[in-house]
Parts: sequence; structure tokens; C-alpha cells
Amino acid sequence: MQEFRFIDWIRRGLPRDPRVRIGPGDDCAVLEPLGAVPLLASTDMLLEGVHFRLEEAGPRRIGRKLMAVNLSDIAAMAGRPLGALLSLALPHRIPDAQVEALVQGVQEMGEEFATPLLGGDTNVWSGPLALSLTILGTGGSNGPVDRSGARPDDWIFVTGPLGGSLLGKHLDFTPRVREAQLLAENADLHAMIDVSDGLAADLHHILEESRCGALLLAERIPIAPAAYRLPPGKSPLEHALGDGEDFELVFTVSPADGARLLETQPIPETTLHHIGFCTDGDGLFLEEMGVVRPLEPTGFVHGS
Amino acid sequence: MQEFRFIDWIRRGLPRDPRVRIGPGDDCAVLEPLGAVPLLASTDMLLEGVHFRLEEAGPRRIGRKLMAVNLSDIAAMAGRPLGALLSLALPHRIPDAQVEALVQGVQEMGEEFATPLLGGDTNVWSGPLALSLTILGTGGSNGPVDRSGARPDDWIFVTGPLGGSLLGKHLDFTPRVREAQLLAENADLHAMIDVSDGLAADLHHILEESRCGALLLAERIPIAPAAYRLPPGKSPLEHALGDGEDFELVFTVSPADGARLLETQPIPETTLHHIGFCTDGDGLFLEEMGVVRPLEPTGFVHGS
Repeated sequence: MQEFRFIDWIRRGLPRDPRVRIGPGDDCAVLEPLGAVPLLASTDMLLEGVHFRLEEAGPRRIGRKLMAVNLSDIAAMAGRPLGALLSLALPHRIPDAQVEALVQGVQEMGEEFATPLLGGDTNVWSGPLALSLTILGTGGSNGPVDRSGARPDDWIFVTGPLGGSLLGKHLDFTPRVREAQLLAENADLHAMIDVSDGLAADLHHILEESRCGALLLAERIPIAPAAYRLPPGKSPLEHALGDGEDFELVFTVSPADGARLLETQPIPETTLHHIGFCTDGDGLFLEEMGVVRPLEPTGFVHGS
Repeated sequence: MQEFRFIDWIRRGLPRDPRVRIGPGDDCAVLEPLGAVPLLASTDMLLEGVHFRLEEAGPRRIGRKLMAVNLSDIAAMAGRPLGALLSLALPHRIPDAQVEALVQGVQEMGEEFATPLLGGDTNVWSGPLALSLTILGTGGSNGPVDRSGARPDDWIFVTGPLGGSLLGKHLDFTPRVREAQLLAENADLHAMIDVSDGLAADLHHILEESRCGALLLAERIPIAPAAYRLPPGKSPLEHALGDGEDFELVFTVSPADGARLLETQPIPETTLHHIGFCTDGDGLFLEEMGVVRPLEPTGFVHGS
């Protein structure tokens, strides 16, 4: 597909958005002034053969996932998405219909969260399909929630069951954008992250930036049905601790906020799970049947 | 290179910037509120085998070019760059030293224009080297200059000689960020674009968005020495009209502003060239030795 025809096609499909002064087609996109809120920006690539197989997943789902993983980064800071820029390196052999389905997937998922395409760059080459999306957002009313604010005694929560995402959820998840905003309105979120690398790995990121430790309670960790359907070798709990791409949110709040969140469960269609506590020690531990063991970022439990 | 080590390495090399609240390493970068100015965003990929050969150009120059082409898009709107996000798809075989040189090239060019890396995504795969950069900027005091404001009778200018960029300039050009800002302070810029596709092609973009025509004067078009060093087949003028990647700025102003710019030449170390006029007709034409002929976006002159 010729680049200019492709840009025209994207432009035609775009609904008018009052936040966007100039959309795709000029040297830059131009957004109306944002005023006194901080600006968020994040970027994520999806690569053929690494993150997806085109024939297996289909172009539309890959497009949806590309937008969704980036939206999940905005959610992880309780931000509001604003728009996105899409870069495509297309293999020579790819049919126009697949490119259209891919971009439609990106736009569909974007529309569900008011995130229009602002611009992009399209290229054809002899390599595999490579996709890069950059998402912009604003910090929301209570400011962005980073990874560095967890404190000893904080309660640790997760927004949903974990494990076995590879069996399907990783392609079809809904980014927790709305849930994050509701959480930020209902509690003082100390630290938050989305589960992309795995619960243990991502919690490790929070602990490192916040300079505290944590204890997870094995029996409180919600395990997804998919974690039971994987071939034996690891337990369902190990999958819940170690598997990536669940895109649930892990966050910490004060004990008082934590108790209130548990009692009121303020997020529609979502059960908030209290899975552990921050400590003033170092490192991440798991308590299971009264025994406390070190938990590696990979989800591996020492001595179990 | 392991992703987390790589992010740490980038973080260590970053100077503190008061505009950046959170840089690389969290779910999103966080920029301090921008207030009442519009936000600019643009993205450009560079692909191995399409835009560069790694062995020929070397990783540092490729990194510099990646940042420079994106800075040129900010310049084309007379914007001020703010920061950038870098996505890398690295071939398995690439040595760490080459990746470091690449990122150093990106950062060096960024530092020349106060454009820090805000974040990124690094991946290793079996495909060729693919680079994607998204640049953010602000609209500047006189607002961003788009492609749609050219009017009949406007004078058309270019900031420097054109043609033969492929012989070297395309890898080592300086984006016209400072020149664009000075121009915006010294004149009411009606429309502007950077010469990436070629003078005729990029001027066509302006004419299309502005719904007017233009006449270029062959003897006024500044021709770069490199345009004379290319193998015969096209004339130096044809190279100046058709070759891409010169990254000079083409802009239009009122005749009064145009005359003043020519007389005062307000841009240090830069000669502004008055190369033609906008018309109330349709399409682009070239006047050469008293004869007017249609000029194609490719730079081809009909009937010459």
C-alpha cells in the first residue's frame, strides 16, 4: 500500500476529537494545550516471531493488543489516554487487507478508550512485521502514580486473577484504564504497576524503586482458570506468580485505605484482592502454610 | 544486552532536565505540565536495508540521523523539542558496543537540541535492525506552523541548497530547529515543511493542503555542490527539485515579509533563498529561460 494512500485511509476513518488540532498527515500532530496536568508518554513494540505469529493471532487481534499493552502503561499510572502514534515496518508480501485489519484493530481498541491515532510512519521492507506504538496521556486529577511510593505496612492489591495468560488472555485482555482511574478516585494509591513481566517481577520493580520489601500470602493470590490448564511442570500458583502479560494492576495503599477498598469494592465487575503487605525489610517473600520463603522475580519459590 | 541493564545504562547517561518529572524506567515518562502551549508529536522509523546499511553508515551516525529526522519534523512546524521515546528491534547478532554507539548517537543529537530520551522499548529478534523514535515538542510562541496556510501571491523560500543528499548530507545534516524558531520570530510564516521527500514533492504537500498553486523560478533554486557530483542522467537542477532528505525548510510568507527577510537575512550562517510564488491556480510549475512547464512531485519537468 502506497504511504500517502494509507495516510488518507487512516485520516478518513478518524472521528473528530476536540483535543486534536491537527491529526495524521502534517509534519507533526498538534494537540490542544493540556494546561496544568502532567503529560505521560510510553512506547511498546510488538515483533513478529517474538510477540506474535501473524497466522495464529490474525492481524486484527495483534493491532488490538498493540494498543492495549500501551493503554495498560497509562493505566499503570492511573493516567488518562490522549492519543497514539503508530509505526509500521511491513513485509513486502503482506496483503493490503491484513494491514487494514491491523490498523483497524489498533483503532478499535483505541476508540474504546478515547485514544485516537495522531500520526505514524509506514514503511515496507524485507524484514518481518514490526509494530511500534507510542501512547500519550495526562496524569489525571490525583497526579500520575509511579512505582516509588510504596511504604512499609502498605497493603498490596491486585485487580484480578493471574496466570496462564499465554493461553489467550494476552491477546484479548482489556486494559485496566477505567479501573485505575476509579481506584485513584477512591484511594491514595502509593505505587502501581501493570502485570506485564509477571506478578513477582513487577512487584520487584515496585520494591526496588520504593526501597522496601514485601510479603505475599499464597492463599490470597487469585489464580486464573487458565493457570490450571497449562501442561504440568509448574503449579498453578507458580504460574500466577511468574507468568507475564496478565495486564492486571498491582498497587499498594495504606492499611486504612486497603480495609476500605476491601469492604466497599468500588470497582464495578472487578474484585480487588488483598494479596500481601509491604515490609521495612529487603526483598520479596511468600508465606505458604505458615512457612515464609524468598520469592524470585521469575516466580520461583526457594525451597518449596 | 539484557533489557533492564540497558535501561539502567540509558538512565545513568541522562542529564537532569527540569521539564522531566520521571524519565525512563517507569510505566510511562512523566513531563511537567506544559500550560497553555499546544503539544506536538511525530514519529519516524529507520530500517536496515531500506534507510541505511549498518556497515556503511555505522551505528552512531544512524542514531544521530534517527533523532535528526524527527527533530526536523518539529522544525517544520517551528516547534520546540521536548523529548523523545526510542524503540529498538535488535538483531541477535548485533554486538553490545554497536547498540551503545547507536543510542549514544541518538542522545548526542538530542542533547544538541535539548531533547532527552524519555523512555523506550528494547527487543531482540531474528529480523534486521529496526529503529523507531517518537518526538514530542511544544508549539512555540507563535503557534505551530502547518502546511495549510499558504496563500496566492505568497513568496516561497528555502533555507539552503538542495540535491545530492544521498552522497552524505542525508546522514550528517543538522535539523533546522533553531532556524525555524528564528524565522517564526521574524515573520508570519503561512506554511512550512521540511524537505524530506524532495522540493517538488514537499511543496506539492503544501499546495494540496493550502489549495493553491505555485510557480518556481529555476535560476533562483540553490543547488548543492553534491547535486553536480552525481552520475549523469539527471541535471543538477533536476536533483535539486527531486532529491529527498535535504531537510532544509520550505516556507511561504506574505510579499512584505518576504522582501524584509531577503533584505535583513535574519538567520545566522544561513542564506534564505526566494525561489518562487504561490498562485491562485492549481498545480506546481517551473519557469526556466522564460518558459513555464508543469513540475511533477518527482521533480520531473514536463517537456524539458
